[in-house]
Amino acid sequence: MASSGRTFQAPKGTRDFYPAEMAVRRHLESVWRSVSINHGFEEIDGPTFEHLDLYTAKSGPGIINELFSFRRAGGDDDYALRPEFTPTLARMVAARAGELPKPIRWFCMPMFFRAERPQRGRLREFQQWNVDVIGDDSPRAEAEVIAVAVGVLERLGLTSKDITIKLSHRELIGDALRDSEVAESNLVAAMNLLDRREKLEPAQFTEQSGAVGLNLDDFNARAAKVAERINGAIAARESDSPRQAASPGSPPPSGQAIDHVLALIDHLADARILQWCEFDLSIVRGLAYYTGTVFEIHEATGKERAIAGGGRYDKLIELFGGPSMPAVGFAMGDVVIGLVLQDKGLLKPALEYLPRPDAFVIAATDGAAGHVNAIVADLRRTGMHVRYSTKSTRNVGKLLGDAAKVRARHAVILGDELKDGIVRIKNLDGGEQSDMPLSDLAVAIRRSHATTE
Amino acid sequence: MASSGRTFQAPKGTRDFYPAEMAVRRHLESVWRSVSINHGFEEIDGPTFEHLDLYTAKSGPGIINELFSFRRAGGDDDYALRPEFTPTLARMVAARAGELPKPIRWFCMPMFFRAERPQRGRLREFQQWNVDVIGDDSPRAEAEVIAVAVGVLERLGLTSKDITIKLSHRELIGDALRDSEVAESNLVAAMNLLDRREKLEPAQFTEQSGAVGLNLDDFNARAAKVAERINGAIAARESDSPRQAASPGSPPPSGQAIDHVLALIDHLADARILQWCEFDLSIVRGLAYYTGTVFEIHEATGKERAIAGGGRYDKLIELFGGPSMPAVGFAMGDVVIGLVLQDKGLLKPALEYLPRPDAFVIAATDGAAGHVNAIVADLRRTGMHVRYSTKSTRNVGKLLGDAAKVRARHAVILGDELKDGIVRIKNLDGGEQSDMPLSDLAVAIRRSHATTE
Repeated sequence: MASSGRTFQAPKGTRDFYPAEMAVRRHLESVWRSVSINHGFEEIDGPTFEHLDLYTAKSGPGIINELFSFRRAGGDDDYALRPEFTPTLARMVAARAGELPKPIRWFCMPMFFRAERPQRGRLREFQQWNVDVIGDDSPRAEAEVIAVAVGVLERLGLTSKDITIKLSHRELIGDALRDSEVAESNLVAAMNLLDRREKLEPAQFTEQSGAVGLNLDDFNARAAKVAERINGAIAARESDSPRQAASPGSPPPSGQAIDHVLALIDHLADARILQWCEFDLSIVRGLAYYTGTVFEIHEATGKERAIAGGGRYDKLIELFGGPSMPAVGFAMGDVVIGLVLQDKGLLKPALEYLPRPDAFVIAATDGAAGHVNAIVADLRRTGMHVRYSTKSTRNVGKLLGDAAKVRARHAVILGDELKDGIVRIKNLDGGEQSDMPLSDLAVAIRRSHATTE
Repeated sequence: MASSGRTFQAPKGTRDFYPAEMAVRRHLESVWRSVSINHGFEEIDGPTFEHLDLYTAKSGPGIINELFSFRRAGGDDDYALRPEFTPTLARMVAARAGELPKPIRWFCMPMFFRAERPQRGRLREFQQWNVDVIGDDSPRAEAEVIAVAVGVLERLGLTSKDITIKLSHRELIGDALRDSEVAESNLVAAMNLLDRREKLEPAQFTEQSGAVGLNLDDFNARAAKVAERINGAIAARESDSPRQAASPGSPPPSGQAIDHVLALIDHLADARILQWCEFDLSIVRGLAYYTGTVFEIHEATGKERAIAGGGRYDKLIELFGGPSMPAVGFAMGDVVIGLVLQDKGLLKPALEYLPRPDAFVIAATDGAAGHVNAIVADLRRTGMHVRYSTKSTRNVGKLLGDAAKVRARHAVILGDELKDGIVRIKNLDGGEQSDMPLSDLAVAIRRSHATTE
């Protein structure tokens, strides 16, 4: 019968997850979750929408255009779909800061929303994995969140050849800006400008640099000195040689922030993940709340947007009404990592992520057909994944084809022997088949399952 | 340091999921998911928000007050947070109706949103498990969705003593209304009135009954006759006696819809779940789109709202631009089932749903402390859940207490023997401990794990 209704589309920038796409999504989620748990993080979640001022409090009213915001009909509270998790996290920590054991190690992986123009790597609704350590100001906490990110990348099949983790530090960026004569009052504006460098036309960038007193060449020269010092330390740790002696000439950059980054490098080396990392002071991270170490994870050749990004935000819990608590975390969205995995051939055909049936029950005779329901129900009750055909055909070959199509491990064939309580079981991976009493069926499938896996 | 920021609350009717609450949520999700898969359903999902007219097309503009609706700043599309899944499902089926293998058997379990006043059992954001069979008009499809619901209830520890599944049928309700002289043009209004019976004051109900020409006593008497006929058949199947002969006097109600329900009862009996069911024509289900069988799942004593509800909606796929396709499905929210489980003592203490660490690494000496990072990283890389203490104490007793608090299965104690490559492992479930080379540690934990489970 022809369609008589009107057709509807999903909103732009959102996705329908049919079974194959959903299976890939669940694969990514299960890697995120199991690696997070193995690294000692506990899962949380918050509301899908928050009071609008939770977002404007931190980022100012300018963020409103990037939000989906709304009111309830007849209500007078303004809400917004969450664009990121950190404000919710800060609110949740602030609400129970006294009673939560420290350091707090949390992860989550819900959906987020941005009212932007959809483009490659950026959707209006996306899933994002967030990992945070709260209450530990040591570089160890930074190494821990970087380690769980590497754990996920490794489990997805990526290596340090495919990926670069670019470390940076907000204070060191600030120092280099100050040293290149940017006024204290222009520091935040200059950092935001550096963050948007790639998105601006050269002429725009030059004009805006002038406005904040930024001499890019001077800044770059100073940033390069810092990077040289720290990348030297990375190379030394990687080659297991002692730390490089200071090169002759001007003394190397030094200070608390440098010492912090050098200690972070020791932690990363201990965890055997330093080979994924390099220091790059051009990484700024746009969000205003970062205070110390920041980092981004990129595909090594620079293709695609950042796979993940994060850093230290030591002032934020306090801003949301909690005590002063140091914090570090990062987020990885599902879209860019999906593009990278696809590009590198690290995703199997989507159907292979679908759960395989343990058994597919086939009626070979009309007499047997009346018993399918009960046998299927009994097998399912033992915790097995069982399917059957609703077709009226008794052509066993055809029905075995249906069983193979859904990648069933076994076919259970009900024929005339059923009146004597006998069924046939066929292993669809190995091909062998045997007859057995119906009462042995569940155990036989389970045992065969154990040997084939 | 005292807090200096303002405090924020979660929006009314939404929830923060701290680790313990999240673990309970994941427990429910994992039961929903694994039972759905065992019953041959495939997981899907759609956008968290849809075009507003996807909801108004089916339910009329009256639904707008129950929705959270919004626009993007500068955009002119109206959106709404999804209040239910069926319109998305119908849209997704309609978009690919030709290529999807039939019958389509899908489930999902995302978040939904209703702009209602929050009250016991009803929140503004809630999670809901949806299960649907599309493309099968037989009572078998209805039995299949009821069976997967029972599968979940059983896995959660509930029995047919705790729960009643109330079956009903829209056409039979319509017949009883017609027979009690309700005019054809008032049928829909009368059905909606019956659905709201419990929510109205008696005087209100009487007044509105008059307006649609409904004589409740007459309707009830006719409904009771139908129920008697069908509950008689249920009793007969349950006691394995042949179907009851018609009782003397007026002929029993009959017709296609009755035959359909009787066939459904046979299917439910085959699947051995008929003891959960009774027929009750007072179940109407509010949503306009149901066409045949409808049902609700209730706590047996009538406490709480419905745990789940659903039915047949054979016209809906077509309304959303697809071909004419029969469909049946139901939804179970997380809130009411949570209250029922809690009330019956079927939830363990929340902490017991948290994942247990395989190992908790303890430094007993300052010399060993520098090796914790690397040993933890190596164990985690083998896929184990490993934690450690960030405390500076070397008091092993205290640290073993921390390990016990997070329910670690083993403690790994690093002491002076570490310089000879020896570590101590203590089984925290059994209490026995032994020393072994560091290189054997991962295998020893994994093996011990396998024997204790």
